[in-house]
Amino acid sequence: MALRGPLSSLLRTQLSHARQQSRAQSVAVLGAPFSRGQKRRGVEHGPKVIRDAGLIERLSGLDYSVHDFGDLSFPVLEKDEPYMNVKCPRAVGAANKMLSEAVSRAIGAGHTLVMLGGDHSLAIGSVGGHARQCPDLCLIWVDAHADVNTPATSPSGNLHGQPVAFMLRELQDKMPDIPGFSWTKPCISSCDLVYIGLRDVDPGEHQILKNLGIQYFTMRDIDRLGIQRVMEVTFDHLLARKQRPIHLSFDIDAFDPSLAPATGTPVNGGLTYREGIYITEEVHKTGLLSALDMVEVNPILGAGHDAVEATASLAVDVIASSLGQTKEGAHASIDDAASVKEDTEQLRL
Amino acid sequence: MALRGPLSSLLRTQLSHARQQSRAQSVAVLGAPFSRGQKRRGVEHGPKVIRDAGLIERLSGLDYSVHDFGDLSFPVLEKDEPYMNVKCPRAVGAANKMLSEAVSRAIGAGHTLVMLGGDHSLAIGSVGGHARQCPDLCLIWVDAHADVNTPATSPSGNLHGQPVAFMLRELQDKMPDIPGFSWTKPCISSCDLVYIGLRDVDPGEHQILKNLGIQYFTMRDIDRLGIQRVMEVTFDHLLARKQRPIHLSFDIDAFDPSLAPATGTPVNGGLTYREGIYITEEVHKTGLLSALDMVEVNPILGAGHDAVEATASLAVDVIASSLGQTKEGAHASIDDAASVKEDTEQLRL
Amino acid sequence: MALRGPLSSLLRTQLSHARQQSRAQSVAVLGAPFSRGQKRRGVEHGPKVIRDAGLIERLSGLDYSVHDFGDLSFPVLEKDEPYMNVKCPRAVGAANKMLSEAVSRAIGAGHTLVMLGGDHSLAIGSVGGHARQCPDLCLIWVDAHADVNTPATSPSGNLHGQPVAFMLRELQDKMPDIPGFSWTKPCISSCDLVYIGLRDVDPGEHQILKNLGIQYFTMRDIDRLGIQRVMEVTFDHLLARKQRPIHLSFDIDAFDPSLAPATGTPVNGGLTYREGIYITEEVHKTGLLSALDMVEVNPILGAGHDAVEATASLAVDVIASSLGQTKEGAHASIDDAASVKEDTEQLRL
Repeated sequence: MALRGPLSSLLRTQLSHARQQSRAQSVAVLGAPFSRGQKRRGVEHGPKVIRDAGLIERLSGLDYSVHDFGDLSFPVLEKDEPYMNVKCPRAVGAANKMLSEAVSRAIGAGHTLVMLGGDHSLAIGSVGGHARQCPDLCLIWVDAHADVNTPATSPSGNLHGQPVAFMLRELQDKMPDIPGFSWTKPCISSCDLVYIGLRDVDPGEHQILKNLGIQYFTMRDIDRLGIQRVMEVTFDHLLARKQRPIHLSFDIDAFDPSLAPATGTPVNGGLTYREGIYITEEVHKTGLLSALDMVEVNPILGAGHDAVEATASLAVDVIASSLGQTKEGAHASIDDAASVKEDTEQLRL
Repeated sequence: MALRGPLSSLLRTQLSHARQQSRAQSVAVLGAPFSRGQKRRGVEHGPKVIRDAGLIERLSGLDYSVHDFGDLSFPVLEKDEPYMNVKCPRAVGAANKMLSEAVSRAIGAGHTLVMLGGDHSLAIGSVGGHARQCPDLCLIWVDAHADVNTPATSPSGNLHGQPVAFMLRELQDKMPDIPGFSWTKPCISSCDLVYIGLRDVDPGEHQILKNLGIQYFTMRDIDRLGIQRVMEVTFDHLLARKQRPIHLSFDIDAFDPSLAPATGTPVNGGLTYREGIYITEEVHKTGLLSALDMVEVNPILGAGHDAVEATASLAVDVIASSLGQTKEGAHASIDDAASVKEDTEQLRL
Repeated sequence: MALRGPLSSLLRTQLSHARQQSRAQSVAVLGAPFSRGQKRRGVEHGPKVIRDAGLIERLSGLDYSVHDFGDLSFPVLEKDEPYMNVKCPRAVGAANKMLSEAVSRAIGAGHTLVMLGGDHSLAIGSVGGHARQCPDLCLIWVDAHADVNTPATSPSGNLHGQPVAFMLRELQDKMPDIPGFSWTKPCISSCDLVYIGLRDVDPGEHQILKNLGIQYFTMRDIDRLGIQRVMEVTFDHLLARKQRPIHLSFDIDAFDPSLAPATGTPVNGGLTYREGIYITEEVHKTGLLSALDMVEVNPILGAGHDAVEATASLAVDVIASSLGQTKEGAHASIDDAASVKEDTEQLRL
């Protein structure tokens, strides 16, 4: 019988505390400057602007040693015709294959992974590579969009709207043999996934969410339940039966466009700053965060320098908070920061 | 005995479902370019900017056939001296008489009505015309202001601060014979009305609200109860005893000025985007929306083009959401949209 | 046995009603143009911009007679070397001594005091002077920061981050003999203080808060509990055992930087407008407000005129709401306003 409620919470706290003690306190930062999963150029500069907003310095102030492995260098494909309506399939497939291997190595080496996108199609490689090391992972997807279209349901054909369909075992028979993706295999079941922040879901996606019984929280659900309750239910759903690694895939467009204007598909009525940070603080407190994607920061799309800077700075806050930065004084001082190394060689990227 | 709580809700759901099935799925859009209910010119351009923000296209993407009846053409009065301190009484009276007749015809013809103001004095005609066809209607008034001054209590004499006083049976003996209004008669009782969003209530209005026991929710009440509970109590108050048509009179100044700057009497501390849309989603879900006013969008008052566009776009979101646009994937695609007709003739406006 | 819950609330309501009836309905406004408690010049212009935003007119519209005592004129010290790492100790000490005496006289004369800063180091004098007249006061500190560093824990040495340490009896043995402060003595115990809005707490401060068992609400606590519950617990903590005068020390940086940009140490994720005003409305409703500090408005730091005006206007809203301005119609009209007097002589400033 699955434990629920207070006892489950108590056990979780104890277990996560034990885990926090034992885990390697190192973070790998990996840039993935890639934009072919959608049509707006610019999101490939996401890793640069997030680093420029002070990411490495912020993480170095926490209790981790920070390893910045730089950016992956993705191949340029001359010929990449659409398959069905799927756009740039070979480029997206090849980039994700490379990312998957890098992520797998980083996590295998004991790091907590921070992947800087790039568009959200990169989650195919990020979650896939993570799952190779941690087959029991669970996935928290914070996003305005469900990104669970299949090639058949996708209105646009853009792969950044489809990554979750590649991961879900239950959708395997709906996925055609897309060129560039022969290396992929589903890595999670629908019960291993929770969405938070949805507010622009396509009809075909809605049907998938309902048919598979996926746990999701729209903005309307957050309005009704409050973010505290949403996180409680999320963890009960994913962690009540057993403690396991968390993959947090965070699309900056989960935030309200007034906070994160520099992104490709903004939708009104998004997360407040406090709600977004509440999510990441709760994730950190589990002690189970194993990998984090920060995607869809697009510095070409903001209305001026301030908008871009605000968006990138918000991305840094999300990452730092996921990794334990607290606002309440329990943080280590800058002087205690561990060293920052540029050890790209170690992972042979 | 009035039903309350879960059973009432269940019945409501069943009834509204039945009603949704049977009702004519057509929407009439009617512009009322009128500004004499207050002193700031510009609000007469509201219908134009709301249409320019894409209203008709948005509604056509939903499950309705959309009939845009264009704008009413109100008479210009040469001589319109104040009566007591009431300003422009004959112009406001004549415009509302014309609007009342057009609204009555549109609802009589089976349409769900969308009235685009113009200032909020237009609710006299809109609610009045609606009540001629649906004498059992109830009224949800979303606004920063109560608009329930009588000529005797009004500090300004502007009629956009008095429309509710014309409607309430209980105030009939407080209303003098204002020139231009001989055609009106009260159409609702104080128990048929709920206010949401109040935060700038005049002392005389406060006394009326208290004396008549009107159900109202200030922003402070929303802070205390949350918007979900506010809507539950609203519907229990208005619909628990019987299902009946809803008139939603939405003043854009209910929103916070940061969201809706282009309006005449902004007041800090207003509805968030999510709260406003939550209200309209809940109204839609009753299946009982029969008429909707969208008023006080004033494109002359915003600080620049962006402010006006944001306000008009918000007005479109409110209307589309009231009419069923969902963010969660249950919407029909653009391709399924019903035809849009310019059939002004049918209503002989 | 201390009363708690509904009975306590009932008694509180009755008592505060009685108190409201009996108290002198006069407000003293006192400017303290001082900025040496921190390093950014400009905050000494706070009193001017808050007055320019219409403070006196707004207060005159409420049920008080308003006495504007102008600005204190602080001595300029030629030589003021740091003591330990404490910066400008003699200037801060002398200004607070002068402020303390003026506050004590104003409250002794029966006024409710409004002190316009200036930086938050001024609370040393404001709370100290208040305590001379009302030794049983309690303190509500609304701020992004705890301002409870001692000279030994302060990372910056700025005294605007240390005022609470001067007040707390429990910290007396941690406080060295700082030049300029021989006149001070602790005036509250840790159980007399509640913090609201914290989100940037230094490690040493965190330890003090925990060691002394101080009741505090971070933004995260507000996210979890809601502002209504936060205020209930605040009053139960401070007032359940006995009714006593409230000192509300409000740092404008408690608000989100999007609302109050013109301040020296903004921190993301702050109070919304509605939360801030909810706090002050609740404080007013106790009938126990005896003194109010409004500090850290710095007109040099806002990005342009609009930012400064928004911040100053927000400060006026906070003060007016603390003193009873309601949005719900129970306010007196402008015509009923009491006279405004420039009676600086009376207090011999």
